[in-house]
Amino acid sequence: MTTRQHISAQFAAELEAIRSAVMEMGGQVERQIVLASEGLENRDSGLAEQAIAIDRDINRMEVEIDEQCAVILARRQPAAGDLRLIISIIKLTTDLERIGDEASRVSRLVIKLASKAGSDPIYQHTARVARHVSGMLRQALDAFARMSASAAVRVVLSDKEIDHDYREGLAKLTAGMRAAPDEVESFLDHMWALRSLERIGDHATNIAEHVVYLARGVDIRHLGEDGLESMLK
Amino acid sequence: MTTRQHISAQFAAELEAIRSAVMEMGGQVERQIVLASEGLENRDSGLAEQAIAIDRDINRMEVEIDEQCAVILARRQPAAGDLRLIISIIKLTTDLERIGDEASRVSRLVIKLASKAGSDPIYQHTARVARHVSGMLRQALDAFARMSASAAVRVVLSDKEIDHDYREGLAKLTAGMRAAPDEVESFLDHMWALRSLERIGDHATNIAEHVVYLARGVDIRHLGEDGLESMLK
Repeated sequence: MTTRQHISAQFAAELEAIRSAVMEMGGQVERQIVLASEGLENRDSGLAEQAIAIDRDINRMEVEIDEQCAVILARRQPAAGDLRLIISIIKLTTDLERIGDEASRVSRLVIKLASKAGSDPIYQHTARVARHVSGMLRQALDAFARMSASAAVRVVLSDKEIDHDYREGLAKLTAGMRAAPDEVESFLDHMWALRSLERIGDHATNIAEHVVYLARGVDIRHLGEDGLESMLK
Repeated sequence: MTTRQHISAQFAAELEAIRSAVMEMGGQVERQIVLASEGLENRDSGLAEQAIAIDRDINRMEVEIDEQCAVILARRQPAAGDLRLIISIIKLTTDLERIGDEASRVSRLVIKLASKAGSDPIYQHTARVARHVSGMLRQALDAFARMSASAAVRVVLSDKEIDHDYREGLAKLTAGMRAAPDEVESFLDHMWALRSLERIGDHATNIAEHVVYLARGVDIRHLGEDGLESMLK
């Protein structure tokens, strides 16, 4: 092996290590959401506490991945595609860390709601949105792992369903508040949980948009639905 | 001038250009919040429409600044401090763009609320939080321009006041909902506006945290209040 080949093999290994670190961070974030949604469904504050405990690891991972990116930028001076990958990862860790924050927010609400009566259909609705959102995040991470633009575009398109479920949930909660003004506070807690879940969907969309940019070099952030669908053909 | 001096002067000029671009983007975002808050105070949906129109420029600026950063990374291979600056700017533009999104959200609510009666004290409260938040953003950008860690720490500490005003607003709105369940929807609109403003405060805090990292090399994201205050001494 020549020195140049040796360096390039090392560089490839470093990039691979960063990609796995991102996947690991993503996996932890996904676990947080799953725990929060199961906590919600079973009114189990213990699960929510586990979700909150993971947040510290996620914050640490963000710092570590950013460090690794800085080291690669300084030592390897990557060009073109590799540089784009590093920049996208720096953006992507921010989204993952923010998803972790939102998942912790949801978990704190789960703890608060676990002790309350509340109507089952509302818990089910919120938990369903949570499951949907964690699936969306998994698909976004999977699209990243495979660098698949079409899988990423499907994630972006699926955000519409989350928005639909979110709005439907809000409408139910608003009606509930009007009918039972004494319980306004727990309706609001559900609303905040839904809002956080909807934001998690937005962050998963951001991640998917980065993947499309990496795989195709196209910025789809401000494309309409027709434009997105034409990318699937 | 030697070639090396020439290159380093050019590099310094490029870094300066990126820093001004960030300040310009920040200025536009700040203008958005000011327009939204004035729109809220005077129930003037025209001002809110102006705020929304700015969002397109902000999105463009984020893409442009990220491009400039990529070019510098590829061409200049900056080391140590300069590299840290570039990485922070890549993170920072994300926060500015998200602030722009939240400001647009507030503006859409202002348009919706402008036609409604609603009680004046609530409008005043929300508008006051908006002014407070835009001041906080200005201070964060000012700390960035001067690379002042102590100014940035003060921004981080001031987020507590926003949180306090936010909670106070929520309590008033919750009481209002309970008393007038028929008006739940416009109370909720105020609540969403307050929530967006509180998130803007969080993003301004993120910006300030990046400034401290740049100026002192310390990551203060998970420091407590005492730790923050000791940095001011």
